Amino acid sequence: MRGPWAASWRSLGRKTLHSSTSSSSPSSSSLSSHLKLLGPNLPDVWMVPCPNSSAFRSQSSANGKTANVINEKSIARAIRAGIANEICRMKETIVKSPGLAIVLVGRRRDSRTFIHVKLKACEEVGITTYVEELPEECTEDEVLRVVSRLNNNPSVNGIIHVDEERIINFVSPEKDVDGFHRLNMGNLAMKGREPLFIPCAPKSCIELLLRSGVEIMGKRAVVVGRSKIVGLPTSLLLQRHHATVSTVHSFTKNPEQITREADIVIADVGIPNLIRGSWLKPGTVVVDMGTNQVQDPGIDQEAIKVVSAITPVPGGVGPVTIAMLLSNTLDSAKRAFGFI
Amino acid sequence: MRGPWAASWRSLGRKTLHSSTSSSSPSSSSLSSHLKLLGPNLPDVWMVPCPNSSAFRSQSSANGKTANVINEKSIARAIRAGIANEICRMKETIVKSPGLAIVLVGRRRDSRTFIHVKLKACEEVGITTYVEELPEECTEDEVLRVVSRLNNNPSVNGIIHVDEERIINFVSPEKDVDGFHRLNMGNLAMKGREPLFIPCAPKSCIELLLRSGVEIMGKRAVVVGRSKIVGLPTSLLLQRHHATVSTVHSFTKNPEQITREADIVIADVGIPNLIRGSWLKPGTVVVDMGTNQVQDPGIDQEAIKVVSAITPVPGGVGPVTIAMLLSNTLDSAKRAFGFI
Repeated sequence: MRGPWAASWRSLGRKTLHSSTSSSSPSSSSLSSHLKLLGPNLPDVWMVPCPNSSAFRSQSSANGKTANVINEKSIARAIRAGIANEICRMKETIVKSPGLAIVLVGRRRDSRTFIHVKLKACEEVGITTYVEELPEECTEDEVLRVVSRLNNNPSVNGIIHVDEERIINFVSPEKDVDGFHRLNMGNLAMKGREPLFIPCAPKSCIELLLRSGVEIMGKRAVVVGRSKIVGLPTSLLLQRHHATVSTVHSFTKNPEQITREADIVIADVGIPNLIRGSWLKPGTVVVDMGTNQVQDPGIDQEAIKVVSAITPVPGGVGPVTIAMLLSNTLDSAKRAFGFI
Repeated sequence: MRGPWAASWRSLGRKTLHSSTSSSSPSSSSLSSHLKLLGPNLPDVWMVPCPNSSAFRSQSSANGKTANVINEKSIARAIRAGIANEICRMKETIVKSPGLAIVLVGRRRDSRTFIHVKLKACEEVGITTYVEELPEECTEDEVLRVVSRLNNNPSVNGIIHVDEERIINFVSPEKDVDGFHRLNMGNLAMKGREPLFIPCAPKSCIELLLRSGVEIMGKRAVVVGRSKIVGLPTSLLLQRHHATVSTVHSFTKNPEQITREADIVIADVGIPNLIRGSWLKPGTVVVDMGTNQVQDPGIDQEAIKVVSAITPVPGGVGPVTIAMLLSNTLDSAKRAFGFI
C-alpha cells in the first residue's frame, strides 16, 4: 500500500490552481469576496485573482536592472475605496458608522505619529475615532477603567493602543482589531478555528501577495524573523493558506540556505539590508516588512536583480497594513450591527 | 555596516551549547528543573541534559543494522516516578492531592480504552480521578452544567474529554491540562507569553528529545503534518526552543527534499510508513507520533538504517504523552494549592 499512499500525498501537493479573471476593480462586492480569501478557513482549492497590472510598477536598480515592485500604494488605495463604499452603504442603510478608539499612555513622540496616520486614514473612509490619553504614570486600574468604558461603548467597534503589555488583556476580543488578543491568536494558531480578527501586518502581507496574483498554496514560504506582531502570525497565516512554511531566526545556522529554496520570502528583520541577492533564488517574491525601529529595508538593494516581485521599503507594506486596520474595524462594526 | 550585522546574525546561530553532567536519575528536584526546560520562556542558552544511557536501547532491523531506539518506556517510568514523589510530598505537607476529571460523552469503544489507560496512570502516581459520563444525545446545556461543576470543584485540577468541539470552550483555562483551550494555544503561539499548559503530545516530543540528549536550539526541525493536537503545537514549541522549524503537509510539493535537510523529524502523519529511509539524511533523529487512527508507524522500517535515534511505533510516544498529562495535572494542583 505504500506506493499509492505516497503518490496520493504527492499528488495533493501538485494540485494546480485556476486563476480567476476578475477582481481588478474594488467594487464593494468584489472587495468582500476578496477579503474572504484572507480568512483562515479556506477551501482546499481556491481562486487566485489575476495579476492586476496596476498592482505592479517597474523599478530600476542602481545598475539599470528592473524588478516588479508591488505597488502597495495602489493596492492600499483600492482597498480603502472599497471600505469607504461599504461604510457609505452602512450609513445609508442603518444610519450607523464604525468607530475606532485609540488608547495612548504617555506622550511619546512615536505615539503621536502612530495616531496621526491612523486618525487620518479613518477620517478618509468614514470611521469615527475616539482618542483616550492617559499619563505615563497612570495605574493599571485607570487603564482598566478607560478600556472597560470603551469595551461597553456600542459606538466603539475597535480598540487599539501602543502599550500592548499594559492594555491588551483588558480589550474585549470582539474589539481587538489589532488581532493580538490571546483568544484571537489562539484561534489563528488552530486549524478549524476562526479568529475574530487577523493581525494587520500579516493580513496585509497575504493581501499584497493575493492582489499581486501570487499563488500561496503549495509554495515554499520562508519567514525571516519571528516577532509576535509580524513574523509569527504571518507564518501561521501562510500555513493556513497551505504554503509550506519555514521560519528562520537568529538561531538559524545557515539562513541563506533556507531562503534560497523559497518561492516567497517574508522579511521581518531587525537588521537593515540583512537579506542579500545571494540569499534568494531567481524569481522569488519578496515582501519586506521593514525593520522595526527604522524605516530601512530588510532586503538589500542588489536583491532587486534577483526577485520577481518585491515590496519597497520605506513605505512598503505600511499603507496596506493601515488599510487592514480599517478593514478589521469595518468587519467588527458589521458583526456588532448585524449588517451584511 | 552590512558585514558586521550579518556576521552577528550568523554568530548567534552558531552559538554552541554546553552539556550538563547531571539529570540521569529522576529525583524530585532534578525532575522539576528538567520540566522547567519544557516551558516556553527559555533562556537564550540553556543546559541540555547529557544523553542518558538508559534512554536508548538498540533495535535490529530486518537486515541486522541497528539504530538507537529512544527508550520511551524507561523515560516515561522515570517521569512518573518523579511525579509520584512530588505527590507524596504534597500529601505529607498539605494533606492534599491532585484531581483529574474525565468527561465522556456517549459510549464509544475508543473512549473506554482512552479512560482506562489514563485512570490507571493517575492511580499509580496518586492522582484522584473523577469520571463524568453523559449520553451521546445530551444537550449543550447538560455538558455546560457538568463542566461548570467541575470548573468550580476545588478538588479537580484538570479536566479532559474526548469530544473536543462540544466541551473545550467550557473548560476553565486554569484546568485545561490538555492545553487545547484557545487561551493556552494563543499564549503558546506568542513569544513572551506563557501558556498555563502545553499540550501533552508536543510536550512529550520535546521531553523525549531533551531526555535523550538531543540538542534542539539552532537545529533544523521538520514537522510532517499539522494536526491541531500534535503537528501544529509541536511546531510552535520547537520554535520556542529555538529550532529552525519547517512544517510539511499534504500540499507540500516535494516533502522528501525538506525532510532530507532535517536534523530532527517529527512525524505526525495519517499515512502508515509515509516517511522512508530516502526521506532522511544519515543521523537524523526521528520522533514518530504514529498515525491517528491505527497503531501503525508513520516511519518506514527501512528508516532504522538511516536515523541516529528513533521512537518506535506502536507504543512510541504514548507513555510519555500520558506522563505529560500527569505532569500538567500536578502543575495545576501546585498552582491551585500554592504548593511549591
